[in-house]
Amino acid sequence: MVTKIVEIKKTKLKNGMLVVGLPGIGNVGRIAAGYLVNFFKTEKIAELYSDHFGNFIWIDPQTSLSQVIKNEFFKVKGARKLKRDMVILIGDMQSMDPQGHYEIAETILAYAKKIGIKEVVTLAGYSIGEKVNKPHVLAVANSEKIRKKYEKLGIDFNASEKIGSIIGAAGLLIGLAKFYKMNGICLLGETHGSPILPDPKASEAVLKTFSKIINFEIDTSDLHKQVVEAEELYKRVKDMEKQAIMRLLRQEMPKEEKEKLTYIG
Amino acid sequence: MVTKIVEIKKTKLKNGMLVVGLPGIGNVGRIAAGYLVNFFKTEKIAELYSDHFGNFIWIDPQTSLSQVIKNEFFKVKGARKLKRDMVILIGDMQSMDPQGHYEIAETILAYAKKIGIKEVVTLAGYSIGEKVNKPHVLAVANSEKIRKKYEKLGIDFNASEKIGSIIGAAGLLIGLAKFYKMNGICLLGETHGSPILPDPKASEAVLKTFSKIINFEIDTSDLHKQVVEAEELYKRVKDMEKQAIMRLLRQEMPKEEKEKLTYIG
Amino acid sequence: MVTKIVEIKKTKLKNGMLVVGLPGIGNVGRIAAGYLVNFFKTEKIAELYSDHFGNFIWIDPQTSLSQVIKNEFFKVKGARKLKRDMVILIGDMQSMDPQGHYEIAETILAYAKKIGIKEVVTLAGYSIGEKVNKPHVLAVANSEKIRKKYEKLGIDFNASEKIGSIIGAAGLLIGLAKFYKMNGICLLGETHGSPILPDPKASEAVLKTFSKIINFEIDTSDLHKQVVEAEELYKRVKDMEKQAIMRLLRQEMPKEEKEKLTYIG
Amino acid sequence: MVTKIVEIKKTKLKNGMLVVGLPGIGNVGRIAAGYLVNFFKTEKIAELYSDHFGNFIWIDPQTSLSQVIKNEFFKVKGARKLKRDMVILIGDMQSMDPQGHYEIAETILAYAKKIGIKEVVTLAGYSIGEKVNKPHVLAVANSEKIRKKYEKLGIDFNASEKIGSIIGAAGLLIGLAKFYKMNGICLLGETHGSPILPDPKASEAVLKTFSKIINFEIDTSDLHKQVVEAEELYKRVKDMEKQAIMRLLRQEMPKEEKEKLTYIG
Repeated sequence: MVTKIVEIKKTKLKNGMLVVGLPGIGNVGRIAAGYLVNFFKTEKIAELYSDHFGNFIWIDPQTSLSQVIKNEFFKVKGARKLKRDMVILIGDMQSMDPQGHYEIAETILAYAKKIGIKEVVTLAGYSIGEKVNKPHVLAVANSEKIRKKYEKLGIDFNASEKIGSIIGAAGLLIGLAKFYKMNGICLLGETHGSPILPDPKASEAVLKTFSKIINFEIDTSDLHKQVVEAEELYKRVKDMEKQAIMRLLRQEMPKEEKEKLTYIG
Repeated sequence: MVTKIVEIKKTKLKNGMLVVGLPGIGNVGRIAAGYLVNFFKTEKIAELYSDHFGNFIWIDPQTSLSQVIKNEFFKVKGARKLKRDMVILIGDMQSMDPQGHYEIAETILAYAKKIGIKEVVTLAGYSIGEKVNKPHVLAVANSEKIRKKYEKLGIDFNASEKIGSIIGAAGLLIGLAKFYKMNGICLLGETHGSPILPDPKASEAVLKTFSKIINFEIDTSDLHKQVVEAEELYKRVKDMEKQAIMRLLRQEMPKEEKEKLTYIG
Repeated sequence: MVTKIVEIKKTKLKNGMLVVGLPGIGNVGRIAAGYLVNFFKTEKIAELYSDHFGNFIWIDPQTSLSQVIKNEFFKVKGARKLKRDMVILIGDMQSMDPQGHYEIAETILAYAKKIGIKEVVTLAGYSIGEKVNKPHVLAVANSEKIRKKYEKLGIDFNASEKIGSIIGAAGLLIGLAKFYKMNGICLLGETHGSPILPDPKASEAVLKTFSKIINFEIDTSDLHKQVVEAEELYKRVKDMEKQAIMRLLRQEMPKEEKEKLTYIG
Repeated sequence: MVTKIVEIKKTKLKNGMLVVGLPGIGNVGRIAAGYLVNFFKTEKIAELYSDHFGNFIWIDPQTSLSQVIKNEFFKVKGARKLKRDMVILIGDMQSMDPQGHYEIAETILAYAKKIGIKEVVTLAGYSIGEKVNKPHVLAVANSEKIRKKYEKLGIDFNASEKIGSIIGAAGLLIGLAKFYKMNGICLLGETHGSPILPDPKASEAVLKTFSKIINFEIDTSDLHKQVVEAEELYKRVKDMEKQAIMRLLRQEMPKEEKEKLTYIG
């Protein structure tokens, strides 16, 4: 196998938009795009398989059946009044090696071109390394034209002050989109950047900004429940970390210091 | 060379089953499938070579001749009354890189398809990280239909409670089998997961479960001798580990503590 | 994507020279070649893209737009009186894996051949691991003929006394140029070899030697300002390193030693 | 570039033998084969280039010219009375990645087949990790027939007692030779296995055994001078190691222990 698309339903869009959320930092993009798949009425139109996704299979938590690792394309059906055709791409994994990233990104873009996509919006996170109360959202465009169009909506495109590069599919897809004559924009939600904890709050912020782009209000109340749970989890993990550090400090300190620490710890 | 099959004997099976046991954790699958090759009357029908098996050759312990690393397909001959045609795949190595795993798995499946295989059964182990007295066997199927068929025989398919993924050929072969319209099932024997010690007891348990699938009693008494030896080896290695830890502890302890340790150690 | 050239302007040179400066040790070559692009009146004639440049995009510091990683070919226009046609290649990155280096070098050379390049000059640095007051420049040629031609200008070709190999594009491009029947010469400026600090002084020295090759005086006064800044930066970083080492020493020393150190530190 | 042969002189051999010595442990094979190139009257008939040799060029110590990394085929000319046509393959490097080893080995074998090679003899070393006074030579054949043929000459083919595998070109070339219907034999000289020190004594032993195979006395007296030098170098390095260890021990010991050490050290 190299990278390949398995089409489930032939699709032809007019002025289509592709929204992409794959696993990454804080899982911000994956959570946001996964939410969209459920929020809208959608149907799966294609699957993408690749030998760059790693040499293993998942076991489905519900069915316990084996699952080859894949990315999935869902088309938003007409039920809710979107101004334009939309396809959402979510998935289990990104490429595990640098060159695979290019191969997969180009396979996605070639398929997107074929079905009529004109604009690619990737959702992702950017880490600031500490707890975020109200996550900011940065945007990066692949052309001056698209930047100007969305800047009018009050979206912050001054990304270069805060970040220098975008790693993985979220960056490559908008960068390479130029070669396919597609607009590209990446929305990056500010996140704590913990490597193990998901950050649905950043996803929620990204979706709020995405609402402006599609000029359609996305009700994120269902996602907000996850935010509360994630905040609690984050707090518990941070407390455990703090306690572990305290234990370490106590072991390395002379006895009288330890006692003091008990009172202030 | 890329990956290639060298056919030794043209074969055409009716409703054939491919049983696969390659090196892996505790060598569970390799030992089990190797046992089957000797238990049944078999003949070699093909060899698989690949540049993903590593840049070295073996020296045959019997003949001292050079051996290119390979996997081997054995066909079970009619001597014992099996209900269906069966081919067993064993080998020296699995792929050493992730993409090679895909390439080799697809080469195996394409060949299997060609000779009439309809069902792939992979044998492997899953680690619990401690000594196992009576190894449990988990099964993972690649479709609801095959799962239901074998669940009736009392096989435990609730794998997702204990494991989240299957790494290497055992997983990929059943996952990718779907694209070749073949049934796939993986039998995983519970093993201590020591990286250096083989675990024939887990292999024995896997063979007992495999007996149900082929509805044919496999006499594992020859394998059982290995189990006794492996248990003794495991015990000796664990004792050595314990003693090494004791020595380390003694070195780091003040003298009076050491003396106490001598009595309780 | 594999490696590919996107031609922006069709070009045909007579006896053309390709000058190459890509990121590397002390960034010596990149700074020197980048200086040439601004020093001469130039126009971009081609871009090179490759999946070997890494799985990320840059964010342009000026525009905040996404930038696929690339190398760029600039043609020197007739404004200043150069004796021969010249194209300058600069870029964001070199290949991140060994085989990509070959692929990219051959793509560059095939394009160079096509547009009429007869001689390839690569600019780079060689590390001596300590501060350099007056950087020496070494040259390496890919044939006796070209070596003799430039040795007459007083350029030092006795590189083998000081270095045994040239890593990356600077070396491969002149080595492989032979297969394309092109002359090749690499100019290496002596540099401190700090992994994080650019060394424009070495770039300046390389440009002075390059002046002889093209028989054209390159005014490096604008570059010289950077040299002064870089020297100050280098001094500050070295001071910080020294202080960090002193702090470490003090922590590990008995008290009376520490006090002495305070006076001499 | 992928791996490719550049033929310098068209060659057609009768019952030809290919002798291979590439860099490896103690450089045993490379030194031995290099000695043969000079001992016989030879002419270069082909060069092999590959992007698997690493992303750098050599600087020739004599000419200071750039040298693309390569392997070289030399044909032994009729001056000395060899019973059969012989080609010697030496080189700067082996592949730096596992799959490149296969690609290069098969490129060599396909070329060998084309020019009439019937037998491949690879020269290499096997490490025992300590000083060797009289290096033993082990042989590994790729068929029972070739093993029997040379066993009659008193060559030791019981390699499996001492080694389990042969890494790199020396092993792969004889293993894969079977697919090209060529005989293959690997001669392995016992060596100290120091990673930095060449071991011409092992090379000398390998050449003595190789003499038997070609039924032609190879005068190794020129090589013997290198043996004496290498022994002295080995002794000096070992002494330096010992002193370094003594220094370390002294630093970590209490004062009275140190003093004792001075007398016995």
